[in-house]
Amino acid sequence: MAVSMDDDVPLILTLDESGSNTSAPNEELEREDLPNENGGSYDIVNDVSSPATGDYHSQQRSARHNWEMNYQEAAIYLQEGENNDKFFTHPKNAKALAAYLFVHNHLFYLMELITALLLLLLSLCEAPAVPILRLGIYIHATLELFALVVVVFELSMKMRWMGFYTYIRHKRTMVKTCVLLVQFVEAIVVLVRQTSHVRITRALRCIFLVDCRYCGAVRRNLRQIFQSLPPFIDILLLLLFFMVIFAILGFYLFSSNHSDPYFNTLENSLVNLFVLLTTSNFPDVMMPSYSRNPWSCVFFIVYLSIELYFIMNLLLAVVFDTFSDIEKRKFKSLLLHKRTAIQHAYRLLVSKQRPSGISFKQFEGLMRFYKPRMCARERYLTFKALNQSNTALVSLKDFYNFYEVVGLKWKAKRNREHWFDDLPRTAFLIFKGINILVKSRAFQYAMYTVVAVNGIWILIQTFMLQGGNFFPRDVPWSYIVFLTIYGVELLLKTTGLGPIEYLSSGWNLFDFSVTLFAFLGLLALAFNMEPFYFIVVLRPLQLLRLFKLKKRYRNVLDTMFELFPRMASLGLTLLIFYYSFAIVGMEFFSGVVYPNCCNTSTVADAYRWVNHTVGNKTVVEEGYYYLNNFDNILNSFVTLFELTVVNDWYIIMEGVTSQTSHWSRLYFMIFYIVTMVVMTIIVAFILEAFVFRMNYTRKNQGSEDDNGIVLEKEISKEEMASIIELYRRNYAASETAPLQKVIAQMDKYEQTSMLFLGRRSRTKSDLSMKMYEEEIQEWYEEHSRKEEYPWQDVFPSGNHMLSSGLRQRSQTVI
Amino acid sequence: MAVSMDDDVPLILTLDESGSNTSAPNEELEREDLPNENGGSYDIVNDVSSPATGDYHSQQRSARHNWEMNYQEAAIYLQEGENNDKFFTHPKNAKALAAYLFVHNHLFYLMELITALLLLLLSLCEAPAVPILRLGIYIHATLELFALVVVVFELSMKMRWMGFYTYIRHKRTMVKTCVLLVQFVEAIVVLVRQTSHVRITRALRCIFLVDCRYCGAVRRNLRQIFQSLPPFIDILLLLLFFMVIFAILGFYLFSSNHSDPYFNTLENSLVNLFVLLTTSNFPDVMMPSYSRNPWSCVFFIVYLSIELYFIMNLLLAVVFDTFSDIEKRKFKSLLLHKRTAIQHAYRLLVSKQRPSGISFKQFEGLMRFYKPRMCARERYLTFKALNQSNTALVSLKDFYNFYEVVGLKWKAKRNREHWFDDLPRTAFLIFKGINILVKSRAFQYAMYTVVAVNGIWILIQTFMLQGGNFFPRDVPWSYIVFLTIYGVELLLKTTGLGPIEYLSSGWNLFDFSVTLFAFLGLLALAFNMEPFYFIVVLRPLQLLRLFKLKKRYRNVLDTMFELFPRMASLGLTLLIFYYSFAIVGMEFFSGVVYPNCCNTSTVADAYRWVNHTVGNKTVVEEGYYYLNNFDNILNSFVTLFELTVVNDWYIIMEGVTSQTSHWSRLYFMIFYIVTMVVMTIIVAFILEAFVFRMNYTRKNQGSEDDNGIVLEKEISKEEMASIIELYRRNYAASETAPLQKVIAQMDKYEQTSMLFLGRRSRTKSDLSMKMYEEEIQEWYEEHSRKEEYPWQDVFPSGNHMLSSGLRQRSQTVI
Repeated sequence: MAVSMDDDVPLILTLDESGSNTSAPNEELEREDLPNENGGSYDIVNDVSSPATGDYHSQQRSARHNWEMNYQEAAIYLQEGENNDKFFTHPKNAKALAAYLFVHNHLFYLMELITALLLLLLSLCEAPAVPILRLGIYIHATLELFALVVVVFELSMKMRWMGFYTYIRHKRTMVKTCVLLVQFVEAIVVLVRQTSHVRITRALRCIFLVDCRYCGAVRRNLRQIFQSLPPFIDILLLLLFFMVIFAILGFYLFSSNHSDPYFNTLENSLVNLFVLLTTSNFPDVMMPSYSRNPWSCVFFIVYLSIELYFIMNLLLAVVFDTFSDIEKRKFKSLLLHKRTAIQHAYRLLVSKQRPSGISFKQFEGLMRFYKPRMCARERYLTFKALNQSNTALVSLKDFYNFYEVVGLKWKAKRNREHWFDDLPRTAFLIFKGINILVKSRAFQYAMYTVVAVNGIWILIQTFMLQGGNFFPRDVPWSYIVFLTIYGVELLLKTTGLGPIEYLSSGWNLFDFSVTLFAFLGLLALAFNMEPFYFIVVLRPLQLLRLFKLKKRYRNVLDTMFELFPRMASLGLTLLIFYYSFAIVGMEFFSGVVYPNCCNTSTVADAYRWVNHTVGNKTVVEEGYYYLNNFDNILNSFVTLFELTVVNDWYIIMEGVTSQTSHWSRLYFMIFYIVTMVVMTIIVAFILEAFVFRMNYTRKNQGSEDDNGIVLEKEISKEEMASIIELYRRNYAASETAPLQKVIAQMDKYEQTSMLFLGRRSRTKSDLSMKMYEEEIQEWYEEHSRKEEYPWQDVFPSGNHMLSSGLRQRSQTVI
Repeated sequence: MAVSMDDDVPLILTLDESGSNTSAPNEELEREDLPNENGGSYDIVNDVSSPATGDYHSQQRSARHNWEMNYQEAAIYLQEGENNDKFFTHPKNAKALAAYLFVHNHLFYLMELITALLLLLLSLCEAPAVPILRLGIYIHATLELFALVVVVFELSMKMRWMGFYTYIRHKRTMVKTCVLLVQFVEAIVVLVRQTSHVRITRALRCIFLVDCRYCGAVRRNLRQIFQSLPPFIDILLLLLFFMVIFAILGFYLFSSNHSDPYFNTLENSLVNLFVLLTTSNFPDVMMPSYSRNPWSCVFFIVYLSIELYFIMNLLLAVVFDTFSDIEKRKFKSLLLHKRTAIQHAYRLLVSKQRPSGISFKQFEGLMRFYKPRMCARERYLTFKALNQSNTALVSLKDFYNFYEVVGLKWKAKRNREHWFDDLPRTAFLIFKGINILVKSRAFQYAMYTVVAVNGIWILIQTFMLQGGNFFPRDVPWSYIVFLTIYGVELLLKTTGLGPIEYLSSGWNLFDFSVTLFAFLGLLALAFNMEPFYFIVVLRPLQLLRLFKLKKRYRNVLDTMFELFPRMASLGLTLLIFYYSFAIVGMEFFSGVVYPNCCNTSTVADAYRWVNHTVGNKTVVEEGYYYLNNFDNILNSFVTLFELTVVNDWYIIMEGVTSQTSHWSRLYFMIFYIVTMVVMTIIVAFILEAFVFRMNYTRKNQGSEDDNGIVLEKEISKEEMASIIELYRRNYAASETAPLQKVIAQMDKYEQTSMLFLGRRSRTKSDLSMKMYEEEIQEWYEEHSRKEEYPWQDVFPSGNHMLSSGLRQRSQTVI
């Protein structure tokens, strides 16, 4: 007994415009509406043959319209939950919704990104520019103005979506607006004056990049850095305090030694102890006093032991501790935010007739907005995976798993074990043999041996080459032999496992690409294409395969790959800091260092460039350090990297200082402290991620191997038929095509049902879920105690989407 | 109803000699023996008026003798538990016991330590010696022989205690014996030949220090280092592997550039990338290729990013992870080892008549051996603190707390709040006023302000002094003003709080000593004692008081003080490595570097010493690096410290290499790797300790402030009297004197009972106990399941102390 689901009426209605027709028709439409529980395969096709008067028809139409609005809003809530967008920016009316949809869209995101990148890249062309990229002032100022106009357009769309009051309360957007204004004024000034002025504000351009939707990870990193700052600064003060004490002490002890240039004034004493903290002037800073009195080394040893080996490590410890704590709190608030989002969405999807759950029809409507590309079969499988009670409706408790389930990729479970199972007998036996061979330990170890021999061979070969002709005209036979072996291995593995299975393993993919590179290198050698010779050099990478042998390496390398996205985002964060410092550096120090520039300073040697003529030979004595300059943005980046590595950075600092003023040192010291923060965070992050993973493996020893998350669901033929019926009635016939195919396949194999596997890789969030299992329950209880079914007071009239109650609460979420 | 406890018979007997008279008399002596449970204050005085025949008397004497033996052995077990000595070295008979007692004794420990230090210090006097300490070969070789003979004596005592078979199975002792033999032979050879030969084996001398009883912490560190090695080496291989790949790549890419000395051979390429890993040749190593092609910086950036910023951090992560895991396992095994020791001791203290617990008399007997210095009152308080059930006997369950309770320092709880409570009214009011003033916030903040002003004053004053006369003849008035303020503060605090309470706080002690130093500095200035001027310089240390203001600093500084002992032992461990490397360095490189020594190498400048005459002025151009040599052990230590700091270490390496051979680089590289291990362990240790403490405070937020562990026990007058009675009957009257004093005090204040407070500071073990609370129960259960009351099978005959069963088990403990 199927009841028309079209007649269902949403329990609450959304968005102002549909506010008028809420309660009156609902009562009329109420009818008996029981979920039929016949063992999982339940009737989805609806009985639409119910009597329909003209009045009723129009009501039905408007109900359908209401549903569409609800679906869309629920999808928006779920997106907000997923992206950790705060609910107070939720669109409030139809106009805002249109703007919201315009803004949340990959095309728009891409536009944001490209504009931001354009603005950043402009500094390649603005004076001081990279020589070959130099553009006229007219051109780059016009480009800049154009990009800024695009940003204005983006911001106006955002304001339309958020509304004016929300907009001015959204800090990041406000900062962006201010920066935009400044940039605008400056760009116009440049155009009018037709000459560049000191534009340090260009350093703020990175905010456009940070605000991009695609740079969410960078924003999170920055937030984490700022959150770790207070304890960091505390310890930094301790560090600086000891530095001051030692500077005074050092000044009193060593300034009587006139051959000691490091401690002759208190300022020098301080600066040199700061540099000593980075160890980059050690032991030089000690030598003059050490040569006079051997016991003066005690001063330096005590200083380094306290500052470098104790307080610096304490700094790491404090940041690490804060970091792990923040990671946990972040996970908690994200989890609860998602939960709230799901509650909101659920509320919008429940019908007045059946308030205990979401039916497939409603779910389908939601997914049309949430994941438009998902096919009907996958939608139904997702619904089934959510629906753990196997009734017609998904309860709120089941719906809480939404985010875990929606990411699964569904595939029919194949009954064939190998790709060659369908081949004729003889072929099958051959391939089966190859398969067994390829999977055997002997084969694997043989390959490891070959790789090892190859590695040693390369090493010896390179060692024998002492200068001269590296790349012989004729390709060496060893190259061909090893490449042949790898080629055969590749062939055997591809045929034995099937190309799809072969390439689904990361390690095999690695083997494949290295072998491919080696082959390309062979071609380069054979056809004498010199620019590609570097490929030949990459051969030793093959040796990396040996690390598969040991479990710890596999672990480490897996962790490495898992960490990679976060590492990349941290790297990008560092680059953003680099960019700002590079701009400031260019504005102040561009052109100040050149060969033989710093002859009055203590580091003159490093900047020397002398062209002796000894006998009849020209000897060039080069200090090279003039290359570490701020003459254009690329040079600045390299110089800043050198400063990050901190060795001999004081040579760069002293060079610049000797050409400008004392105060330049501040720039370098601040840069050091900033990179120290970021680097400490990076170390803390690697530590945290690694230790977390180790603890996880220790906790879940032998419980399962890490193949990601897998779910199995069975669909019977009848269910399939009823979904098709549903789709045929409601949507275009084209959508039923993939479903028809499934049925056809079932018919082919004469099955009454089909098994599907949902698969996705394990994320950090899944690991955290398992690690904090017990605590999560507490969090939920605490959360629901605090909220007490939020919608009851949030939507008192069933009409206003955002009561002030919700607004306040959602601000507390992150 | 009191029963003679003298008649108690031990349930089991110890040591062979008393084995004959075990079972026969016991049965005779068995009588009804019930603990009387009259509410805590129980009768301790024994009824000795029982009929005693002559035969019975001798039996009683031998029983008393048996008890003495049991007490001693129980004390030994408890000591073994405390010191984590394995039970298989437990003395097996009376001869072994005598040797054991001889060896376990502070005098003997001191002898061990002094001998070891003497041997180590000999290298100050042996060629190449520190000039002023040089001794003739006869003298130092004789000294060495003497020290070695002492070691032989120590080892022979040890063998006597352990027995031959245990001795040769004890690895550390065997290694020590072998080293001893080698040293002996060499010392004799030196004496005979009357000239020193290459004696690298001297590097092994540190084993004598490591084996000292007082160096247990160093042994633990070494064990931890060795346990962390396997994962460390794995990652190190990964690191080296990438280094080799990049070395090959670098060689191919840059060796065509003839102005690039860093990559011209594969060996140079490898060495320079190794040095680059320590960043000490960056950016120099990059400059030649960078000046030719700017894109070559990519090679170096990628290399540093992978090796330095990723794999090196991974190394730390892996070591940290292993380290925390080891810490936990160590804690577990120590805990279980102690528990087993307590079980053994308990078994020896229980009497046949009352097998359910230990009476005070037995406990008293034990403490006479375990802590001979403890006074009678403290023994009784310890017994009461153990006895949680408040019956006459301490059950095994209560006895498990032995180690926690025995460390408590007992003091009568004073009923006076302030030290001046007994003074006359007027004086009381004055002191009370001072007390309130001193404790007020306003006073504290006023002092902070004074300290801050003083700090700024010193800074400005120092900044104004640009060279010249630092120490004026007349003492500056600011010095006197501030010192007066501090003096007044000190006086007020001492009078307001009472000297004892004042000095019981670490911070006050610090204030006191800094003020004292400042006063001494004043004297030095006033009386013009130049060598003491450095004290004046220590004034800014006063500023450290400002760090009391913030909770985080208090936390950090507390952690610092808690970590100090472990840090010191880690430092000592590092010094031991230094010693070995210094000896090897001296044997190979002594005298190879001198001014202008390395003119053919790339680092010639650093070793230059030129005496120009420009005009009529002599200008000395100094590179100073010839000072970083291995000419004597002190110089070697400084050089090794410089190598540890790793900046510019390649200059030292290249200097030595240019004077000796390529292979010298191995020494420096191995040293780098060894210090890297130790340093990583130090970082991991600081991280672990700090994070542990932070987690602990987070877990126990607001539960109690960290004043250490405090226990309160009340003793009534009757109890006191009965203890005095017990002592008077069994021991010399002198021992009852402190007890009499307590009674006299009770009489004075007209109390019927007196409260005592037991106090000790919180140790890491206490924190761990609380952190792993839940797990500890599991460990205990697991342990007892495995052991099933160990003594049942350990002492089957009640006679053989060490059955093989126990021997096997105790080996598994650590």
